[in-house]
Amino acid sequence: MILYGRDMSPFARRVAIWCDLQGREVERRQLLVAGPQWEEIKAVNPLGRVPALVLDDGEVLVETAAIIDHLEETAPEEARLLPAGGAERRRTLQDIAYATSTAEKIVALVYDKVRRPEEFHYPAWIERLEGQIRAGIQVLEGRVPEAGWLSRTDQPMGGDIAVAIAGEMVEVVFPDLDVGDTPMLDRLVADMRGLPAFAETRPKP
Amino acid sequence: MILYGRDMSPFARRVAIWCDLQGREVERRQLLVAGPQWEEIKAVNPLGRVPALVLDDGEVLVETAAIIDHLEETAPEEARLLPAGGAERRRTLQDIAYATSTAEKIVALVYDKVRRPEEFHYPAWIERLEGQIRAGIQVLEGRVPEAGWLSRTDQPMGGDIAVAIAGEMVEVVFPDLDVGDTPMLDRLVADMRGLPAFAETRPKP
Repeated sequence: MILYGRDMSPFARRVAIWCDLQGREVERRQLLVAGPQWEEIKAVNPLGRVPALVLDDGEVLVETAAIIDHLEETAPEEARLLPAGGAERRRTLQDIAYATSTAEKIVALVYDKVRRPEEFHYPAWIERLEGQIRAGIQVLEGRVPEAGWLSRTDQPMGGDIAVAIAGEMVEVVFPDLDVGDTPMLDRLVADMRGLPAFAETRPKP
Repeated sequence: MILYGRDMSPFARRVAIWCDLQGREVERRQLLVAGPQWEEIKAVNPLGRVPALVLDDGEVLVETAAIIDHLEETAPEEARLLPAGGAERRRTLQDIAYATSTAEKIVALVYDKVRRPEEFHYPAWIERLEGQIRAGIQVLEGRVPEAGWLSRTDQPMGGDIAVAIAGEMVEVVFPDLDVGDTPMLDRLVADMRGLPAFAETRPKP
């Protein structure tokens, strides 16, 4: 399989780590969603968005949740990273939902504050996004247990991956943004760094 | 259940129609994600995003894909709107993925072009979003069959809902945006208007 998208995309990174924890071989194409590399991405996904996963038979899958649905369905049961159903699945999908929401707002802030010339910065919108990121990070902080994984098993699973990616990303990309105290989230990110797939995909701004 | 989010949100609207087609009773709270009503949304989802679905026991679910996962899991088999697995599920989730991607870019363009004072409009970004919307709509056009539903059954299912919402939204919100010819998509939207849940939730800009 070939995965399009850089580690700077919290969504491409999530797919990369997911594949690794499931023991899958994936060839990475860490292309920019801007400049000439964007054309290469658009040849795979006409919208020019990542992640895009090209399966071994050439079928292209786009959008993180849809890609992960396929990865889960085709993995052996013991390699699945989402609970099969019930309250545990709902809880894990909400861990992922809040992490995704927060990560989307971090990406939106990159677009609004980093990629846009300063004369087009709209302060009210930047303030709104910063507030949403702070709220999201605090929701995640409240969901991380005092010890152990969000999965409540002896290994990190889908919720841990998504939450740790969002927590690490805000710190890497916006180190000056005050998101409040996050001792639980910091602990989770530190623990996740014990996994090569997480440590080696730390985004480089 | 209580659903937060207006019909103008393609994601809240998708959840509303999904619930209706599954025969579920849902109380709508069509609140604006701006102004004083935003505080009411933030009391339910601290990030202030919709959709948010409050279950009958008070549990809150956020994020469209996670909400729909729960609706599918708890529906009787004959009321499910996604295929259970395999190539059919993958195809339907890709219909939804491209529709979601396109709808996200339409929402981003609303933020960039409608909600932001004109002096902060960044032409290069608006052009990029318009190109992504055009590409997304054309992908959807290519996925709609010549006749019948995307579901390939005798009734519209999850893919039809998502694709028709994206197709109708661009036409309602940006009628002057040239997205190219879309005879198949227009036909699908027209057919979907035969469903009260779709017709009655048409967004009012």
